[in-house]
Amino acid sequence: MARTHKIRLGMIGGGEGAFIGAVHRHAAGLDGHYQLVCGAFSRDEDNNTRTGESLDLEPSRVYGSWEQMLEAEAKLPENERMQAVSIVTPNHLHVPVSLAAAKAGFHVFCEKPAAVSFEEVKQLAQDLSSCSVLYGLAHTYLGYPMVFQAKDLVATNKLGTIRKVYVEYPQGWLSGEEESHNKQASWRTDPALAGASGCMGDIGTHAFGLIEFVLGEKVTELCGVLNTHVAGRRLDDDGAALIKTESGVTGVLIASQVCAGEENPLKIRVYGDKGGLEWQQMEPNTVIYRPVDAPYQVFRAGGGQPGLCEATMQRCRIPGGHPEGYLEAMANLYTSFATAIRQGETGTADGVPGIEAGVRGMAFIQAMLDSSDSETKWHPVPELSQ
Amino acid sequence: MARTHKIRLGMIGGGEGAFIGAVHRHAAGLDGHYQLVCGAFSRDEDNNTRTGESLDLEPSRVYGSWEQMLEAEAKLPENERMQAVSIVTPNHLHVPVSLAAAKAGFHVFCEKPAAVSFEEVKQLAQDLSSCSVLYGLAHTYLGYPMVFQAKDLVATNKLGTIRKVYVEYPQGWLSGEEESHNKQASWRTDPALAGASGCMGDIGTHAFGLIEFVLGEKVTELCGVLNTHVAGRRLDDDGAALIKTESGVTGVLIASQVCAGEENPLKIRVYGDKGGLEWQQMEPNTVIYRPVDAPYQVFRAGGGQPGLCEATMQRCRIPGGHPEGYLEAMANLYTSFATAIRQGETGTADGVPGIEAGVRGMAFIQAMLDSSDSETKWHPVPELSQ
Amino acid sequence: MARTHKIRLGMIGGGEGAFIGAVHRHAAGLDGHYQLVCGAFSRDEDNNTRTGESLDLEPSRVYGSWEQMLEAEAKLPENERMQAVSIVTPNHLHVPVSLAAAKAGFHVFCEKPAAVSFEEVKQLAQDLSSCSVLYGLAHTYLGYPMVFQAKDLVATNKLGTIRKVYVEYPQGWLSGEEESHNKQASWRTDPALAGASGCMGDIGTHAFGLIEFVLGEKVTELCGVLNTHVAGRRLDDDGAALIKTESGVTGVLIASQVCAGEENPLKIRVYGDKGGLEWQQMEPNTVIYRPVDAPYQVFRAGGGQPGLCEATMQRCRIPGGHPEGYLEAMANLYTSFATAIRQGETGTADGVPGIEAGVRGMAFIQAMLDSSDSETKWHPVPELSQ
Amino acid sequence: MARTHKIRLGMIGGGEGAFIGAVHRHAAGLDGHYQLVCGAFSRDEDNNTRTGESLDLEPSRVYGSWEQMLEAEAKLPENERMQAVSIVTPNHLHVPVSLAAAKAGFHVFCEKPAAVSFEEVKQLAQDLSSCSVLYGLAHTYLGYPMVFQAKDLVATNKLGTIRKVYVEYPQGWLSGEEESHNKQASWRTDPALAGASGCMGDIGTHAFGLIEFVLGEKVTELCGVLNTHVAGRRLDDDGAALIKTESGVTGVLIASQVCAGEENPLKIRVYGDKGGLEWQQMEPNTVIYRPVDAPYQVFRAGGGQPGLCEATMQRCRIPGGHPEGYLEAMANLYTSFATAIRQGETGTADGVPGIEAGVRGMAFIQAMLDSSDSETKWHPVPELSQ
Repeated sequence: MARTHKIRLGMIGGGEGAFIGAVHRHAAGLDGHYQLVCGAFSRDEDNNTRTGESLDLEPSRVYGSWEQMLEAEAKLPENERMQAVSIVTPNHLHVPVSLAAAKAGFHVFCEKPAAVSFEEVKQLAQDLSSCSVLYGLAHTYLGYPMVFQAKDLVATNKLGTIRKVYVEYPQGWLSGEEESHNKQASWRTDPALAGASGCMGDIGTHAFGLIEFVLGEKVTELCGVLNTHVAGRRLDDDGAALIKTESGVTGVLIASQVCAGEENPLKIRVYGDKGGLEWQQMEPNTVIYRPVDAPYQVFRAGGGQPGLCEATMQRCRIPGGHPEGYLEAMANLYTSFATAIRQGETGTADGVPGIEAGVRGMAFIQAMLDSSDSETKWHPVPELSQ
Repeated sequence: MARTHKIRLGMIGGGEGAFIGAVHRHAAGLDGHYQLVCGAFSRDEDNNTRTGESLDLEPSRVYGSWEQMLEAEAKLPENERMQAVSIVTPNHLHVPVSLAAAKAGFHVFCEKPAAVSFEEVKQLAQDLSSCSVLYGLAHTYLGYPMVFQAKDLVATNKLGTIRKVYVEYPQGWLSGEEESHNKQASWRTDPALAGASGCMGDIGTHAFGLIEFVLGEKVTELCGVLNTHVAGRRLDDDGAALIKTESGVTGVLIASQVCAGEENPLKIRVYGDKGGLEWQQMEPNTVIYRPVDAPYQVFRAGGGQPGLCEATMQRCRIPGGHPEGYLEAMANLYTSFATAIRQGETGTADGVPGIEAGVRGMAFIQAMLDSSDSETKWHPVPELSQ
Repeated sequence: MARTHKIRLGMIGGGEGAFIGAVHRHAAGLDGHYQLVCGAFSRDEDNNTRTGESLDLEPSRVYGSWEQMLEAEAKLPENERMQAVSIVTPNHLHVPVSLAAAKAGFHVFCEKPAAVSFEEVKQLAQDLSSCSVLYGLAHTYLGYPMVFQAKDLVATNKLGTIRKVYVEYPQGWLSGEEESHNKQASWRTDPALAGASGCMGDIGTHAFGLIEFVLGEKVTELCGVLNTHVAGRRLDDDGAALIKTESGVTGVLIASQVCAGEENPLKIRVYGDKGGLEWQQMEPNTVIYRPVDAPYQVFRAGGGQPGLCEATMQRCRIPGGHPEGYLEAMANLYTSFATAIRQGETGTADGVPGIEAGVRGMAFIQAMLDSSDSETKWHPVPELSQ
Repeated sequence: MARTHKIRLGMIGGGEGAFIGAVHRHAAGLDGHYQLVCGAFSRDEDNNTRTGESLDLEPSRVYGSWEQMLEAEAKLPENERMQAVSIVTPNHLHVPVSLAAAKAGFHVFCEKPAAVSFEEVKQLAQDLSSCSVLYGLAHTYLGYPMVFQAKDLVATNKLGTIRKVYVEYPQGWLSGEEESHNKQASWRTDPALAGASGCMGDIGTHAFGLIEFVLGEKVTELCGVLNTHVAGRRLDDDGAALIKTESGVTGVLIASQVCAGEENPLKIRVYGDKGGLEWQQMEPNTVIYRPVDAPYQVFRAGGGQPGLCEATMQRCRIPGGHPEGYLEAMANLYTSFATAIRQGETGTADGVPGIEAGVRGMAFIQAMLDSSDSETKWHPVPELSQ
């Protein structure tokens, strides 16, 4: 065995006051696969400098803009320059930065959503197809070990033929006029930065992605409604949809940011003719499995726990009963991404949502926008070719 | 204080093998306000006789048909004959029996739904208006003490202006072809006995009634879908709807009988601009209250428990931590009904869902049927005058 | 099948302001096996009269004292006089009333504890042995269906050889000087009425009885401590003990009435070499079963629920997910008692704790008193012959 | 602001197959304050080499023994050599390595327990007092944000005068003869490597430390019992104790490794005359607060969550509802340790259990051993001077 070198990582966005940039850094640090070597954290020069200093970066590799960073890093010797870049900017920059980085030969790990519109993501998908890099999307919830367990219960027919799916993501943090004073709320409710949807872009895509991941099939049609419950808000802060999948599963998707008092109880329930399952993000180490003819069982994450599938076990670091959480879920994505980098892969990394997931997320938003404005009941979730 | 005489109760339906009849008898017995004096339990003579014997009834007051019973009881001396009748037949008999009993001067306590169609219930409502009796509907869940606490939190503005409501009732007991061997399933899936809807008639009405009870306002529009997931089944066994209320609350209603492995987790969540609440039938003694700006609070049912409203306290028999359940909820309806009888009231008894609730339930079913068949998104929930 | 006559029940104690008398009446009424025909509810004449009136009793059968009641009822014709009596007085009357009733030929259903001391209960046990009546003790928690399920999991070796047992009953209602204004608290903290122990007599006996019932074996030794945490209180309000059973199981028993904020979370956990189980009174319809080598399972009470033993199923009235609670547990004892009466049995009724359980409870209290005062570690739980 | 350099960390122990070494590395990596620069991971040369390679260490700084490592690192230039060392060996090496490292001028972060006996830890405490380094002990559970919240509720008198404390740590992983094939079990049950106690040394100390941390006072006396439930095991695998604190709080401590099926539900409950609280490690982001006179409240960890004390907020990385877990708790200790290093402190780092906690843990074990062997009820927990 040869020495395993850390992967040299850069970051775009994520200066002081940002939320998700720190999450990415914690996650990248957790398993020791990465060394942060450079960054363009903020357009604000002081913020940018301070962030770089606090992260122990060489001052020469703290760049004033992402354009400078990509250009300068590309010129460094191969064994010094960054290998992968984490993109943690507001949504409207995701595609421009992703594409520039990919074209410059850097692996891209981008915060979701992949783009600000279905049109934009289609273009991104096409352009990426000619780049020899990995593209990963930080759908953090798809890094939880027990989401893989849920997927496995479906895939191995423990639930029989699937009939129903309910997914819900009721948050409460935008119940007030948060955008007037909270930077995170402010850009998320600004169409120019967030895209055409607020709630659906921010968390509806998580709910939607969770359905397709666990079921292993596509949502084909929906009947949705978008609401804006806080006066003056420019984007939807709430919505719901009746849905249908390609195999005939019916269900409901709920996403809201005005469920006052709620934190982040993203939940999925799936039912087939032989049983049901349930997973909830705020107790992520548990999957409840309800067979039709036996007392229900509770699968628990952790090393040495009985009944776990291989994909779940690979994503647990410690024995059962010592909870792993959100940062560990994100770290699982980073670790899978590191494995793919080391194996020289391109495209989508095994275990990491890729551009296909990004396309699906934007298709969902498009369908919700179409449906909400319409008097007609059912609307298709558009395919890439549409 | 004078001696409080027990109310003489009769029962129609509820022979051996029935489910809800026994529930009514347990509930009527719990608080000691009633004495069962007569019954017409089953068209099957042996069943009818055996049921009467097991209930210690005078053989002369175990009748071969409900028509005979109403006729014979009406002829008994006033201080002997039954005062109120519990109707626990399959749905299609609810209106004929209710009307006949009411016209004969007996108070009517009827299992829900009130009727098998919106047309039928409108007629019932009109006919009842000329009868001087009480009419109560066994919406058992509206007898739980903490449902009143939830209603009180809304009514006293603890949640602020209400924005969202989610209600769900996912059962699993009809996941298989239960109707082939289970009498309860058999009539509930037979349009001739159950009415035009299966799942919505059986449990969707509970979910709908809970919304209007807790919010204290009407659902005005819905966009719904009904599904039949088990092959060969003649009625819907599943459905969901996007909903709107008269004040602009938006929400989702889910009801299903094919959520394999689920029991009876009827749940309501309500959110306003100042906070949210949650109540779930399988842990009925708890209401979670989530203010936007303080740690969430858990109200607990029971004598001596802090923070409970008057209506809730009146419905608790024992100190907190000794769970009361479903039969106690039903008993609360029976006890409120007894109080109204003793006070000589007519129409709707305080604390008991009446014909108005019955009308609303059938209006909901009608709207679901209309909506499910339609390509148009929103459908009104019809009013009595419509 | 012949007509099943209701059993004629009398009650001693349980006037207005009492707690447990009403519980017994609810429980006796729930399943329809009893008709309350007489009572001596209170030494206070007005209270006694009012209670009788509110219960629709013949004024002639509302007696001024329990002595009068036993004497008068015994003289009534056999088909009129009471058959069984519920004793719901303060503890110090349990033995005198039980004995007098038993000697007069009435079946006795007595609130726990059976007596106020080990000496007194030994005498009761001896005297009862010559009476041809049933004696039942209202250890309500032993009426819960899922307590039988827990017992069955142990008895059928699902846990393997038992090693550990933890039982706890932390209440909070006596955290303040409740006895100054609360009648229930007042007599329970008065040695003349409650006996030599407060907390252990009131709830420690429940915890102790639960251990012996579920394990099916005796606690032989304990090392205990009793505390009085509220100034001025005359009896213990708290305590704990290390315990050992005859087969070598070790464990801990906790009972307290000063665990501020706690309701009635009586809990038992049992562990063997093949698995463990858990039951908790505030969610009484659930038993958690943890095998060593599989995901844990949750057994749920209710008609039609999978995996339940016969004794559990017999004690469930309604389908799973419609919670039954404390009154139903007590009603299960009353129903088992009714069955035994109808079958002409004497001694201990199947399914109802009898004098043996009463003896064990008082032996436990004696051992706790002995141990708490002693500098020696282990003390035996005395046997009847000791 | 100047560039914040990462702290150069070394590790002793923690080669392939070890458990806690990886935990320390994850934790040290999470917040980016450390760079692992050297290690002596295993006496097994191949293991040692492979571990170093997998961690991207310079081969020259992967040492064959901890003695070599301390000697070699001390000779490196100040700006290269390690600054702090994590000690993750079996227990018997904790003191020798800690002392050697401290004497060589390296900050010591040691896995618990601090020593293998009370005698040994007393010597360590004395010797450390003359070293100018920091000494931290990895009592991971004392890094959880909500443990600080619990401590704050007590300290700010929200519970009033404390009366009761219950702490329990029932594990199940040693229910079988795990030591025959599991390296982790093997050394933990070997007196030569683990010390004189198995269960109490491994997890009883966690339970004990949690009591003293949350209450902010000392346990002074206990009456304990140690058991060995698995045949052939050489150390205790189970035990419990009645306890008293200096202010008169009474309580119970339970620790077991044979509670089959249990994971790591370390739980503490505290009750005063004004209220109670509860925290449990498997749902570590929640503290339940039960005031005597209001519905109970649930404090939830996370950025922006209401009601949290300063110490808790400082230890939360992400908004509420995104769970942080065990690795984050350990990372909190590492981050507090880093802060103290950067501030040039010595002795005990603020927010990190130090040698005092280590002494208390060993005093507890000593008292348990004394008590378990004795026929006398109460035994003192020895003080440093004893």
